[in-house]
Amino acid sequence: MMLKTHNCGTLTKANVGETVTLNGWVQRRRDLGGVLFIDLRDRSGIVQIVFNPDFSGEALAIADRARSEYVLAVKGGVVLRDPDTVNPNLDTGEIEVRVTEIEIMNAAKTPPFFIEDGVEVDESVRLKYRYLDLRRPEMQRTLMLRSKAAKLFRNFLDENGFIEVETPILTKSSPEGARDYLVPSRVHPGEFFALPQSPQIYKQLLMVSGLERYYQIARCFRDEDLRADRQPEFTQVDIETSFFSRDQLLDLMEELVVKLMKETAGVDIERPFQRLTYADAMGKYGSDKPDLRFGLELVDVSDLVANSGVKVFAQIVAGGGEVKAINAKGCAHWSRKELDDLTPFAARYGGKGLAYIVVKDGEWKGPIVKFFSEEEIAALRDRLGAEEGDVLLFSADKKKVVADVLGNLRLKIGKELGLIDESVFKFAWVVDFPLLGWEEDDKRWVAEHHPFTRPVEEDIPYFDTDPGRIRAQAYDLVLNGYEVGGGSMRIYKRDVQEKMFAALGFSQEEAHDKFGFLLDAFEYGTPPHGGIAFGFDRLVMLIAGRTNLRETIAFPKTASATDLLMDAPGTVDDKQLEQLAIRVALKQPAGK
Amino acid sequence: MMLKTHNCGTLTKANVGETVTLNGWVQRRRDLGGVLFIDLRDRSGIVQIVFNPDFSGEALAIADRARSEYVLAVKGGVVLRDPDTVNPNLDTGEIEVRVTEIEIMNAAKTPPFFIEDGVEVDESVRLKYRYLDLRRPEMQRTLMLRSKAAKLFRNFLDENGFIEVETPILTKSSPEGARDYLVPSRVHPGEFFALPQSPQIYKQLLMVSGLERYYQIARCFRDEDLRADRQPEFTQVDIETSFFSRDQLLDLMEELVVKLMKETAGVDIERPFQRLTYADAMGKYGSDKPDLRFGLELVDVSDLVANSGVKVFAQIVAGGGEVKAINAKGCAHWSRKELDDLTPFAARYGGKGLAYIVVKDGEWKGPIVKFFSEEEIAALRDRLGAEEGDVLLFSADKKKVVADVLGNLRLKIGKELGLIDESVFKFAWVVDFPLLGWEEDDKRWVAEHHPFTRPVEEDIPYFDTDPGRIRAQAYDLVLNGYEVGGGSMRIYKRDVQEKMFAALGFSQEEAHDKFGFLLDAFEYGTPPHGGIAFGFDRLVMLIAGRTNLRETIAFPKTASATDLLMDAPGTVDDKQLEQLAIRVALKQPAGK
Repeated sequence: MMLKTHNCGTLTKANVGETVTLNGWVQRRRDLGGVLFIDLRDRSGIVQIVFNPDFSGEALAIADRARSEYVLAVKGGVVLRDPDTVNPNLDTGEIEVRVTEIEIMNAAKTPPFFIEDGVEVDESVRLKYRYLDLRRPEMQRTLMLRSKAAKLFRNFLDENGFIEVETPILTKSSPEGARDYLVPSRVHPGEFFALPQSPQIYKQLLMVSGLERYYQIARCFRDEDLRADRQPEFTQVDIETSFFSRDQLLDLMEELVVKLMKETAGVDIERPFQRLTYADAMGKYGSDKPDLRFGLELVDVSDLVANSGVKVFAQIVAGGGEVKAINAKGCAHWSRKELDDLTPFAARYGGKGLAYIVVKDGEWKGPIVKFFSEEEIAALRDRLGAEEGDVLLFSADKKKVVADVLGNLRLKIGKELGLIDESVFKFAWVVDFPLLGWEEDDKRWVAEHHPFTRPVEEDIPYFDTDPGRIRAQAYDLVLNGYEVGGGSMRIYKRDVQEKMFAALGFSQEEAHDKFGFLLDAFEYGTPPHGGIAFGFDRLVMLIAGRTNLRETIAFPKTASATDLLMDAPGTVDDKQLEQLAIRVALKQPAGK
Repeated sequence: MMLKTHNCGTLTKANVGETVTLNGWVQRRRDLGGVLFIDLRDRSGIVQIVFNPDFSGEALAIADRARSEYVLAVKGGVVLRDPDTVNPNLDTGEIEVRVTEIEIMNAAKTPPFFIEDGVEVDESVRLKYRYLDLRRPEMQRTLMLRSKAAKLFRNFLDENGFIEVETPILTKSSPEGARDYLVPSRVHPGEFFALPQSPQIYKQLLMVSGLERYYQIARCFRDEDLRADRQPEFTQVDIETSFFSRDQLLDLMEELVVKLMKETAGVDIERPFQRLTYADAMGKYGSDKPDLRFGLELVDVSDLVANSGVKVFAQIVAGGGEVKAINAKGCAHWSRKELDDLTPFAARYGGKGLAYIVVKDGEWKGPIVKFFSEEEIAALRDRLGAEEGDVLLFSADKKKVVADVLGNLRLKIGKELGLIDESVFKFAWVVDFPLLGWEEDDKRWVAEHHPFTRPVEEDIPYFDTDPGRIRAQAYDLVLNGYEVGGGSMRIYKRDVQEKMFAALGFSQEEAHDKFGFLLDAFEYGTPPHGGIAFGFDRLVMLIAGRTNLRETIAFPKTASATDLLMDAPGTVDDKQLEQLAIRVALKQPAGK
């Protein structure tokens, strides 16, 4: 077996005169009347190898049998190409290898698609033949980027005294259980392990253990109905610290992110990152993960329209709702249809409608204009910076609906108007999330994050008076409209924890049922602690400039949680199930 | 909140004069008539802090409330201790901190055991209170060692062009299915994922993908009946390469191991590692994972006793079995009981008996001596190096039984005689494993490793004539009697794979049923490849000088696969099961 002495893609003029052995795959072959050219590809790239009766001898005839994706071993001399055959698009374009010996290491059937970037093929085919899809340079680059990003995270955290600890995958079903993957125990029939949705409890226990600084690049599992940016198993960079303030943690994480971005994407990110409160994020961008690469902010005009003749505006403001607007600069050329299509767009996000005013030919036009007084129009013009050519878009509803409608409209318009510079990475922290949210159906408070999230110190008195006003020491890292990380400082004092459980309506007994061993642990000297988790798949996706998580995962699952390569999940032997003391209980036959 | 400016265990004379803030746990407190000394512990170690009415003010009264494992924040000045109170056993023993401010960050109940090394407490208590157990310095050292070892593996592999790729945890039940943990799919009722016993198939697919060098520190799962050195989930350093020969791989892995041992255990390991064939390992040590820290080799005496008057020896040799002996040097002082106890010991390993000869007072003594001729005794003396004071121990049986009996006896005697230097790390490769083993019950050949293990090239013709003689290109790395790694070169040629399947008695259809997608993948240009996996938990255990895998895992499971801390596995809601379309089917009620 002839094994490689060099990599294909790294040969340069410096190697001219050397005899090299290469191993790789046939990218393409061209037969120019008895002289055979093959582009040989390995992980490092492509090089042109040449077979010529003058120097290749028997190797030519053997090479002639090679087809696309055959695996070859070749030996030969590196020579300069003729100046007129230099290929400036190829790193190795100045040289070629004159082959004197060849071995066909393996043959290949014709692959179902070409092994090249930008290939047009259905994703299901790519996933079924993932081992071929991963041969494509862009996939290899993404996997290498992912590996490099993991290394950067680890190196930074190692250097800062963090200890990597592996936490169990076979663990216990969480109190809220739904969406846990379960694993029947053979040794304990009728009992189940669960796969962790995150190592949250373990990392807090490690802080109780006095480990002080922990990290793990951890696999997590959630049996959700999937969306494009979710996978049933996903990876997070999980971090927890003791004796560290929120600001110390955020500072250190910024330093980490800046380093990561520099060394993977080659971009300089400015510090400190913008920090905006949840209230501001929702208010100005209608989202708790705003895309800050462009403005087009939401503007509250409730006060200006509260007494206007637009009855619905006035009513909504009177009822505690709000009226907000965005100014779509220079969009007055929109057709009637484009304007009318905004209503179904708003409806998708729960909006009942979307009023508009077009500023054109020196006039304000649109169904609602006539109901405004001149003073109101002047005030709106002023606040919205309305100029000739603009379109003003109004949403009036409950706060949440207005945010959803205008937040999404903002993104849509931002994209359409080309306001987004795709080369920019705009990080920001969203802070001061509310600790509790009111669940109207059950008439009770629920934890917005989890029941161990620490409230802002000075808000603790509001537990007794106005729980909805309590801010959490929670924070999300957002990047270009995606949440790429999130975490919180945790409650470590018993009295605060009791207030929290009381607010959530848990009796001491219920709390113990749900969180027993963690509460027990907290009795033995728990340090102040807190942490963060980065969504690793998503972060890699954004750095790589991809739009789909599946592009960043070697062997992903489809949107219906299927592995098309392995054909998993699948049925299993009854005998296997019997050993596990379970039985399939279908409402209708499997595979229907 | 007063947050640390320094770590407890790293304060030295160099810090004298500085004002520091420390956070940590109360290790112990001593009240010397109004002056209070507390040993404050954090991850870095322990420092003595002092409270004295002269400089501590109110802090003294607050400190007086602190008990073991309370979490404190203190501020104070670093001063030299009086020369006569210097503690040479403590890294910080030359200094102490005079506290001027204190905050009790958290109280603690009295822990169920002392937080110190060598504590005598039942392991089940330690596991239930793992968060306290992990506070003990030896546990923290082990976790840090583990983290460091992982980092060393990764750095070495990164530097050598390996790419870290994460492979799925939710995958498909393997063809041999038994011992797979299953995960019911909610989205596909009646179907199951399985947790991987290793990433074997994925890493081979990554080689088909042209990734060339892959690694992963991978979690693996096996639902086995547990032994002391097994865990239901375990970690392996998983490695695969393309275009690499066996010897290239073993060389590189030796380099890796040498670096690992130097930087974790501080020991120099000599290269190249000893290589012994499977036949030699079994022949001389009765084990495929021999402890090479001592001799006491097994010696074949079949030829010497084949015609002796010891009928059972003669018969066994005639029947294709063998007679081997070990010389227990200087053990002639063993009592009759000690000698008689060897028979039940042998029985544990399937031996019918264990004959012995004691060389004492210039005589050979023992039940079988009288059946030997003088020439036979001389020949045995010669071959076994028997001298005054020795005991010769004979096992006669089928090869495998003799190996098991004498291999284990060798270990027992080696330990008892103190032949083993516990400070030595003796690595070796065991190579040339048989490719196929004959299964007497089913009268068929089975793969000793897995059906993709590549045979030694020149042995391929034996597929047609003598399959048992084919050596596999498989290798194990052994250390002090443990297997710490293992792997093989893989079959990548279709014709060899077909010979293998034929030898295993698989029809092409069966082979496709079992390994379909991998065989499909192999059709598209598979490079020659092979790899290895290190048992990470076990390796860490040996480096740390521990004897139990649970000591190397933060949150391990017991021998009955239970997590005592989380109380997992556990029962789950019927509603959860219904969503997963499964039902518990107990032969007897749960929890019986």
